[in-house]
Amino acid sequence: MSIDVLQEKIRSMKNPSMIGLDPILELLPEQIKEDAFQKHGQTLAGAAEAYRVFCCGILDALKEAVPAVKVQTGCFQAFGADGVRAMEQVLAYAKKLDYYVLMDTMRGDIDCTAEALSESYFGGVKVGENVYTPYPCDAVMTNSYLGSDGIMPFTKYCKQGKNVFLLAKTSNKSSREMQDIVAGGRSVYQVVLDLAMRWSIDLFGKFGYSEIAVAVSGKHPAVLQEMRRQYDRLFFLVPGYGAQGANGRDVQYAFDRYGYGAIVCAGRSILYAFRKAGGDGADYQKFALEAAERMRTDITQYVRVL
Amino acid sequence: MSIDVLQEKIRSMKNPSMIGLDPILELLPEQIKEDAFQKHGQTLAGAAEAYRVFCCGILDALKEAVPAVKVQTGCFQAFGADGVRAMEQVLAYAKKLDYYVLMDTMRGDIDCTAEALSESYFGGVKVGENVYTPYPCDAVMTNSYLGSDGIMPFTKYCKQGKNVFLLAKTSNKSSREMQDIVAGGRSVYQVVLDLAMRWSIDLFGKFGYSEIAVAVSGKHPAVLQEMRRQYDRLFFLVPGYGAQGANGRDVQYAFDRYGYGAIVCAGRSILYAFRKAGGDGADYQKFALEAAERMRTDITQYVRVL
Repeated sequence: MSIDVLQEKIRSMKNPSMIGLDPILELLPEQIKEDAFQKHGQTLAGAAEAYRVFCCGILDALKEAVPAVKVQTGCFQAFGADGVRAMEQVLAYAKKLDYYVLMDTMRGDIDCTAEALSESYFGGVKVGENVYTPYPCDAVMTNSYLGSDGIMPFTKYCKQGKNVFLLAKTSNKSSREMQDIVAGGRSVYQVVLDLAMRWSIDLFGKFGYSEIAVAVSGKHPAVLQEMRRQYDRLFFLVPGYGAQGANGRDVQYAFDRYGYGAIVCAGRSILYAFRKAGGDGADYQKFALEAAERMRTDITQYVRVL
Repeated sequence: MSIDVLQEKIRSMKNPSMIGLDPILELLPEQIKEDAFQKHGQTLAGAAEAYRVFCCGILDALKEAVPAVKVQTGCFQAFGADGVRAMEQVLAYAKKLDYYVLMDTMRGDIDCTAEALSESYFGGVKVGENVYTPYPCDAVMTNSYLGSDGIMPFTKYCKQGKNVFLLAKTSNKSSREMQDIVAGGRSVYQVVLDLAMRWSIDLFGKFGYSEIAVAVSGKHPAVLQEMRRQYDRLFFLVPGYGAQGANGRDVQYAFDRYGYGAIVCAGRSILYAFRKAGGDGADYQKFALEAAERMRTDITQYVRVL
C-alpha cells in the first residue's frame, strides 16, 4: 500500500479515521477475559488471548466503516512473547480484512537494529533459505530523536509501497519540554517535518503527498493549521481525538481544502465505548461501531471527504 | 539493584564495562545456527534459539569479568514472538548469573502504554490473581522525545531499586540533526540531562549519583567532558566504544576523578571478536572474554577503578 491507497480508502469509505488498537486488560469486556482465562488460566497467555479476541472483534465490527487501524506494539509487548504472538495474529487479521495497518512502535532505532526491525515489518527476515514477516503491516511510526539514521532504514521501503510515520508533535502535556524548543525560528517538531521533506524527494504520490508522513497532535489546532500551511506535501496522522480531548473542529485544520492530507486517530473512546453505556461489554462491537460513526460524523461536518 | 549497586559491582570487578547483547544472525558462529536449525528448521523459532544459545554463551564467558549487560530489545523483537521468548530467557539467565541488566528499549512511551511496559520490566503485570514480570531487569533505557510524561511512569520504580537511562547524545552521525539543536544556550541533549536532574531530587545514592542516568556517546569526548563538568550527579552510560570508534582515551572524560559516574558499553567488538581471528566461531567465548579484558585494560589505563 502507499499513501495514495490510504487516501483512496479514506475517500471510498468517506471516513478519515484510524482506530488505535491499544488494549488494556482491565477495560476489556468481562466475558472475553473469563473465556480466555478458562482456556489458559490467569497467565500471560490467557491475557494475550483476551487481547487477540477483543482486537479481532473490533476489527470485525469496524471493517465496513473504518479504513485504517494503528496497533500499539507496547500494549502487546507488555505481556511478553505471548502478547507478541497475539499481536502477530491481530496484524495478520487486520491485513486479511483489508485495513491499512500502521504499527505504532514508538521506537527510534539505527544501524543493524533498525535494519532487522524494518525487515520484520516490511522486507522480510531471512532465516537460511526462508523469509518471514512476523509483523505484516503497511506502515510504521518511529521516533526521530536519532535523526536521519533512524529514518532511512525504514523509508527505503517506501518505493515498495510502505509508509513511514514520524512522531513530530505529540498529544501529551509534556511534549512541549522537548518538541517546542525553538532555535533559528524552527521548533524541534518542525525539524522532524523538515527531515520528512528532505527524504521525500522522489516519494510524492498522485495526490501530492509524500510516502513519509508525520504525526501532529489534534490537541494543538493552531500548530496543526500552521503546519498544514507550511508543509502542504506531508500527510498528517492526527492523534489526540476523543478520550484525549480533541474534536472535529480542532482536527479539521490537518486537512487540505479538498479533504486530503490527513487521518484522525482515536483509540479508547472507540474501543471502550461500551463502558460509558454501563453495560457488561457483551455488545462492545455495537458500541464501538456507533462511536466510530459518531467520530466520522463529527469530523466530516468540518472536512469534505467526497 | 540501584546505581550504587552497579557502581559497587564495577569496583569489585574493577571493570567499568557493559556488554551490549545485540545479536545478528549472519554474524553468529555457524555451529550454533546449524544446531538450532537442526532442532527447529530454518524458522524464526530456529533463529531465536540460536540467539538464546549464543547470548547465554556470552553471559557464561564474561560472568567473572564484566558487571553489566545491555539487551537490545529490537534485535530479538525482529524475530517476532519466538525472538521475544528467547529474550525473556536471556534476561532471566543474565539475572541468574547476577549481572546488572539494562533493557535497551529505544522506546518513548506515555500513558497506559508506558504503565503497561513499566510493569512488564519492573512492577509486574497483573493477570487476575497472578503477577508476572516477563522482562526481568534492573534498568531500562528510554527515548525522551515525549518529555516528562515518558519518564515518570518508569522513574517511579527508582525507589524500588530500579534505574532509568535516558537517551541523550547518541553515537550515530545524524544525532546532531535533532540532539545538537541549541536554544537559549542549551542543546536538546542537555535538556534531557536537565530533565533527568529535575526528576532526581530524592533519588541520589551514596556515591552522589542519581538513579536516573543518561546515555552520552563516547564518540564526542568534548561533549562528554563538558557534560561531566556540568552534571556531576548524573551517571553516564557511554556507548560508541569499539566497533563504533571510541577508545579508552575518549571515554575517560565520562568518569569523575575517583573513577565513579560512568560505564562504557561495547557490543559487536566483543560478541564477534572471533570473526577477526578468522576462526569458525567454535571458540567465540574465549575471544569474547579476551576482547572484554582488552577493553577493560584500555579503559582502566585512563580511569582509576580501585
